[in-house]
Amino acid sequence: MKVDNFADRLCAAVLDKDSRVCVGLDPDLERLPKHLLEGNTEGEAVERFCCEIIDAAAEHCVAVKPQAAYFEMLREDASSVLWSVMRYAKQAGLLVILDAKRNDIGSTADAYAQAYLRDDAPVDAITVNPYLGSNGVIPFVKTAAAEARGLFVLTKTSNPSSGELQDLSLQDTDKLVYQQMADLVADWGHELVGAHGYSSVGAVVGATHPQELAELRERMSQTLLLVPGYGAQGATAEDVAAAFDDRGLGAIVNSSRGIIFAYQKRNLPPTEFAQAAQAATVEMKSQINSALEQNAS
Amino acid sequence: MKVDNFADRLCAAVLDKDSRVCVGLDPDLERLPKHLLEGNTEGEAVERFCCEIIDAAAEHCVAVKPQAAYFEMLREDASSVLWSVMRYAKQAGLLVILDAKRNDIGSTADAYAQAYLRDDAPVDAITVNPYLGSNGVIPFVKTAAAEARGLFVLTKTSNPSSGELQDLSLQDTDKLVYQQMADLVADWGHELVGAHGYSSVGAVVGATHPQELAELRERMSQTLLLVPGYGAQGATAEDVAAAFDDRGLGAIVNSSRGIIFAYQKRNLPPTEFAQAAQAATVEMKSQINSALEQNAS
Repeated sequence: MKVDNFADRLCAAVLDKDSRVCVGLDPDLERLPKHLLEGNTEGEAVERFCCEIIDAAAEHCVAVKPQAAYFEMLREDASSVLWSVMRYAKQAGLLVILDAKRNDIGSTADAYAQAYLRDDAPVDAITVNPYLGSNGVIPFVKTAAAEARGLFVLTKTSNPSSGELQDLSLQDTDKLVYQQMADLVADWGHELVGAHGYSSVGAVVGATHPQELAELRERMSQTLLLVPGYGAQGATAEDVAAAFDDRGLGAIVNSSRGIIFAYQKRNLPPTEFAQAAQAATVEMKSQINSALEQNAS
Repeated sequence: MKVDNFADRLCAAVLDKDSRVCVGLDPDLERLPKHLLEGNTEGEAVERFCCEIIDAAAEHCVAVKPQAAYFEMLREDASSVLWSVMRYAKQAGLLVILDAKRNDIGSTADAYAQAYLRDDAPVDAITVNPYLGSNGVIPFVKTAAAEARGLFVLTKTSNPSSGELQDLSLQDTDKLVYQQMADLVADWGHELVGAHGYSSVGAVVGATHPQELAELRERMSQTLLLVPGYGAQGATAEDVAAAFDDRGLGAIVNSSRGIIFAYQKRNLPPTEFAQAAQAATVEMKSQINSALEQNAS
């Protein structure tokens, strides 16, 4: 039994590095710099790409978020490459949030939790989809509690069609679906609140819905938020500022394509992808910190 | 572009084998016969277990449903073992339904679809979680259409807490959440209806809710149903009969633990796990067919 707490580790890293940035590792083969593929297998190219991004960004971000889908495109090589990259990120002192949106029931949900959140698995937290209700989430919460790990439950996602289900109004309670989910997430997390006041049971709330983000920050005051949608999906530092408390804690903001493929947007040669990613990480870190300072003053 | 249709392949297999059984491959390491682990890695034991089950059951079932979670417990070896098992099942003439409940948005959902439903991937259909709305499902539908593959969208799941979200009543429409989802699934599937009258965009509807199963059979009359919950989870052949039309088409019923670990329930030596699984598959096939005949008479 480990005695520390994922939410506390994350808050400590945020304060230590003065960074609220999570770098999303979405190694889309079609956008990888071509020189990485020369003489290498696709798996080797993906691994080298991710590890170079990690080296370049580690000082300026608190976490990486590998997106399982892009690793699974490697088919039978998927898990070996994913696990190597996650181990590398841990060795670089980063928190690893596996974006796998796993979900199942009972003993099967427990199998996922055991696979990723136990013993020496190089994963600090995993994203979880709550469509199945508490049978699908509690097994992750229990393992997180026993192993000092965390989870982020999809609550209000960043995509345009998230409202098709999440914004529907419920009878009786007069809540929207995502509000109902937020209340469940807060409940599931009560017993995992750490010394900084946040629970290791977090929520995914998209930056592309700034009003709902501010509302949910208030509604689930002890819930750590993982905020995707920054950069390529259109959200700005001002949009995400509402996710933080006045200590600058309570959330981390993810950018994937905006950082790892920054060389394309900045018209730099593909060989400079890592430097471009570093510059984009530093810039994002500063933009968010400035927005927080502005709100405070 | 392949011209055939997953739903038609499934219906043809049901008629050909007179079986509506899907065998769930949940190779939980703790329940594997111990002799398989002697002198083998865990991955080798899982692979041998699944392949022997496939050999024993192939004649009497139409599909296998590997549960990704149990393969992912093998950590870095997960994908190589999963892909070997799926290839083996295809060679045995079975349909492969990968129970991965994947979900993400836009290009990331597309990455999952490309990983599992394209070219020579040994997967006929994949299960998908719809919490993210159509952005999370349409990429799978498009790939399924282009590659003659299928998907099963979680609609009303078999677990006790499925109602926490799925049974909530919506304002305005007066529908329950799972009914709203059923209507979306039927919409997504309109263009993939095959010659037998069913769409390759199917739905997961648990056998443990017989009333909802009957209601959804009627509500989504062109949707293929994947019905879990038989056996170990408590549902009977009478419970699932309502999932079928009067040709005995429209659904397949999954049993996992009730078949693959039948040797335990039948108190047989672990070395006879495959024969026990075969007997359990034959029995389940007959039970369902008898229930359908009884309903018809």
